[in-house]
Amino acid sequence: MNYKMILQYDGTRYNGWQKQGNTEHTIQGKLEALLARLTGQPVEVQGSGRTDAGVHAKGQAAHFHLKKPWEPERLMEEINRYLPEDIGVLELAAAPERFHSRLNAVGKIYRYQVWMKGKADVFSHRFFYSLGKDLDRDAMEQAAALLVGEHDFRSFCGNKNMKKSTVRRIDAIHIRPVWSGKALEMDFEGNGFLQQMVRIMAGTLIEAGLGEREPGSIGEILQAKNRQAAGFTAPAQGLCLLQVMYKERDLKV
Amino acid sequence: MNYKMILQYDGTRYNGWQKQGNTEHTIQGKLEALLARLTGQPVEVQGSGRTDAGVHAKGQAAHFHLKKPWEPERLMEEINRYLPEDIGVLELAAAPERFHSRLNAVGKIYRYQVWMKGKADVFSHRFFYSLGKDLDRDAMEQAAALLVGEHDFRSFCGNKNMKKSTVRRIDAIHIRPVWSGKALEMDFEGNGFLQQMVRIMAGTLIEAGLGEREPGSIGEILQAKNRQAAGFTAPAQGLCLLQVMYKERDLKV
Repeated sequence: MNYKMILQYDGTRYNGWQKQGNTEHTIQGKLEALLARLTGQPVEVQGSGRTDAGVHAKGQAAHFHLKKPWEPERLMEEINRYLPEDIGVLELAAAPERFHSRLNAVGKIYRYQVWMKGKADVFSHRFFYSLGKDLDRDAMEQAAALLVGEHDFRSFCGNKNMKKSTVRRIDAIHIRPVWSGKALEMDFEGNGFLQQMVRIMAGTLIEAGLGEREPGSIGEILQAKNRQAAGFTAPAQGLCLLQVMYKERDLKV
Repeated sequence: MNYKMILQYDGTRYNGWQKQGNTEHTIQGKLEALLARLTGQPVEVQGSGRTDAGVHAKGQAAHFHLKKPWEPERLMEEINRYLPEDIGVLELAAAPERFHSRLNAVGKIYRYQVWMKGKADVFSHRFFYSLGKDLDRDAMEQAAALLVGEHDFRSFCGNKNMKKSTVRRIDAIHIRPVWSGKALEMDFEGNGFLQQMVRIMAGTLIEAGLGEREPGSIGEILQAKNRQAAGFTAPAQGLCLLQVMYKERDLKV
């Protein structure tokens, strides 16, 4: 039986989503170890994509197969009981046998949060990049508009040895003031994202907002197809995976 | 020069407000050490009241005197720069020489948060008591109504050797569902609170909500004037000091 789940996590304590060798402290590693213990069978949990160390999620999607099926509601209760307090399963349901959380994903939404002025709210600081400077939202929106559309995002890819296509489509970037204008949130919606692509886009938009970079220079950055042309990689703690989108028909059991 | 400040803190990592002997890890201790370092003079920071280990604040009030005055805005910036990320100063202003954050306080509002069903939101779990059971809000409101008014709250006092008066006035208790009904918040407003009084009231209301205690029994509990008569002391992590009230005339410089 195949299962799809929606997860939330505070990524602060983790080495990211993907298990790596002996590094047990990953979200995927925690889930696989727990599912194996609960069900008495080896379980491989596949995520819609990796999230870097320190990145958070409010709607990460994943799937896994169980040879001996469990009732989804009961399984979700048991998982939540034994997972640490900073990882939670929000939904768990039976999925079609062929459903694959990464291969079937048709879109994702990420949010990047920057605290501008003063000290970040003490109850939320783990989820903001504390910049300590004001940002010019108009300049950021001008730059953001030039990122929207289908482009070769090689300049915004953290993996220098990327062999596959670096063409992706950004459907929308929304920039909003939050916390009475003391912070900004930037939502990035697209059909897929390269390694560190959101953090590099966020860093580049922040540089535009600081006046360190012309908003109109985005076209040249894209054309350069060179990581050096784009801005800095904004810190992981400001990033959160909000949602992964699928086609209705791929989820119908 | 006398200064009044409003503070917020995530109390998770601290041994409460009040400095105690060698235990440096208190909010008051952190503030005094930092102010002494910044201003080059010994500084005593007085809070409106102690908060227990693990209790949070969104509006703790405090005051302190400086022999060599500082410009309040600049002082607040400096304090926030060097305080850890889980303590923040929200306001800092000059106060009348005789202003005293504890002696002048005329009221306080505390909030107690309980997560009932399922797993607490991973981004907020530090600020909720995770009960894992449903609560009957009607029963809790019936019990809460009997706590409102001026009473001898000795049964709700965590200090067995309390020599002073244990009469306090509760002005209002508001109980609201939050997080789509998965959690409850209880706001307690009154002219003053005894040691652990909010946590014992919250524990007693929770017992009423679980059906373990008759809502009508509050009168008997008050009359008993005995800590044993009331409910359990609800955990510190669900409690937050929201606001401390003063008379306008006591703040006018």
